[in-house]
Amino acid sequence: MVTEIEEFISAVSRDLDKTLDEHVPKSKAEPTRLHEAIRWSIFAGGKRIRPAILTAAGRTFGAVNAQLSQTAAAVEMIHTYSLIHDDLPAMDNDDLRRGKATCHKQFGEATAILAGDVLQTLAFKAIADDETLGAETRIRLISTLADASGTPTGMVSGQQLDLDAEGKTLPLEKIEQIHRQKTGALISAAAVAGAIIGDASEDELTAIKIYGARLGLLFQVTDDLLDVTQRTGILGKTAGKDESSEKATYPGHFGIEKTRAMAAAIRDEACDALLLVERDTSLLRDLTDLVVTRKR
Amino acid sequence: MVTEIEEFISAVSRDLDKTLDEHVPKSKAEPTRLHEAIRWSIFAGGKRIRPAILTAAGRTFGAVNAQLSQTAAAVEMIHTYSLIHDDLPAMDNDDLRRGKATCHKQFGEATAILAGDVLQTLAFKAIADDETLGAETRIRLISTLADASGTPTGMVSGQQLDLDAEGKTLPLEKIEQIHRQKTGALISAAAVAGAIIGDASEDELTAIKIYGARLGLLFQVTDDLLDVTQRTGILGKTAGKDESSEKATYPGHFGIEKTRAMAAAIRDEACDALLLVERDTSLLRDLTDLVVTRKR
Repeated sequence: MVTEIEEFISAVSRDLDKTLDEHVPKSKAEPTRLHEAIRWSIFAGGKRIRPAILTAAGRTFGAVNAQLSQTAAAVEMIHTYSLIHDDLPAMDNDDLRRGKATCHKQFGEATAILAGDVLQTLAFKAIADDETLGAETRIRLISTLADASGTPTGMVSGQQLDLDAEGKTLPLEKIEQIHRQKTGALISAAAVAGAIIGDASEDELTAIKIYGARLGLLFQVTDDLLDVTQRTGILGKTAGKDESSEKATYPGHFGIEKTRAMAAAIRDEACDALLLVERDTSLLRDLTDLVVTRKR
Repeated sequence: MVTEIEEFISAVSRDLDKTLDEHVPKSKAEPTRLHEAIRWSIFAGGKRIRPAILTAAGRTFGAVNAQLSQTAAAVEMIHTYSLIHDDLPAMDNDDLRRGKATCHKQFGEATAILAGDVLQTLAFKAIADDETLGAETRIRLISTLADASGTPTGMVSGQQLDLDAEGKTLPLEKIEQIHRQKTGALISAAAVAGAIIGDASEDELTAIKIYGARLGLLFQVTDDLLDVTQRTGILGKTAGKDESSEKATYPGHFGIEKTRAMAAAIRDEACDALLLVERDTSLLRDLTDLVVTRKR
């Protein structure tokens, strides 16, 4: 049975694929290898969770799809660029992603580096060129996404902290910091971006920031759990990878059962933050459940 | 003797270093390795030619330094990110840049990939957060720089075409296309960005685009010449690199003497474009001379 939230995500994914197809040059356009590589990775069957969060947050505050789709595409492009670079031999050295060869395995390292680079460029361009939004709103979105994906508190700084931590036993606060930056920041920014487009008040934005931060942490914690409990076939990427490379993870620190209880508590905190928003927040609530119960 | 244009570039460089220092997190800020790597590359004694072009174009149209410095820094950050990634083992595999170890030689490949990634992010953020400019202007600048550094007609697509061309003998049009995209697009965008900030008219922007495109080509042609005529010590990077890796170059195609004559002709075309701009364009003219006569 397909639940309402699953149907929502399917609809977001269909809309997203259309928008991405418009913003990424066609495979036949020169340089074809570069554009094929981008398309290989961006249409590789990703879960589209960030665009879904952005769209859910936007709808909560009354934004319509046309206003949300380009920024949703931008967030997914930034996410995909980070995956392509994260998979490189010098980084995680992963051969498999979403059940397919990783970008560098398929197109070579040089093209994979360039494909990641230019996906970031296309992301910021998609927002800058979005004529459904006022210039002030676009500027705010670009700044928000740059903070979330950059340094010193965003995604790339989290990836560096993660690199620095390999082979070390970390205190819990450090693991949390890595997760917050590496995964949480962009997920949180997706929620905030939707709220910005929906013209949420400052108080509402604060609540959505907390919701997004908890949801981001929840996503990482459940990701860690899936890494130790699922087989590679279901996961679509190499399972057990975290342990074998001695990455800092929650199950590694607390064990599986305690990590599951923590996930439930984090989910409740995310929902509590929504109590401060006097709108219909059911979509955002349902997303937290989906993150907890997902199988990949 | 220091000429007027050399003094201008020195002044731009000093202002730029200050702005960059404000926009790149301190070396002591976590993750320190990432921030050290960024600073290693961005304060490595670059020629600062792109910020100088942007500033010269901006001044030509009456913009003041405070309005120009963040976008100038952004252009230099994009240029530096491209150098860091270009030097990687999977790309040009260069050990030396501006007389120093390249970023990946000093900090490892993973950190160099991340340093390049986040420099791009910081570049777009610097413009988005520039409160000396109206939101519409910032949006235009971000879109212009994204086009120039992205694909299908920008810097990254030029790098891909260059990769695709290695080991092949190319027709002249193809060499020109690679140069236009890989180097010319960002140099041209620097000129256009300055003109946008100075609120140039559409006709003036068209003239500056032509000027910038010729200047960009001139820069690449003279760069190729320096690669075959200068020793590694003066150049600060590995000389003779183009030939040994069978890159598409002008001297390789036409020989040194004919390439020198072409450079002079391209310089004249750049200056001819300025005849359409009824302002004092002496700074922009002097820059073309500087590019022709430079020794590194």
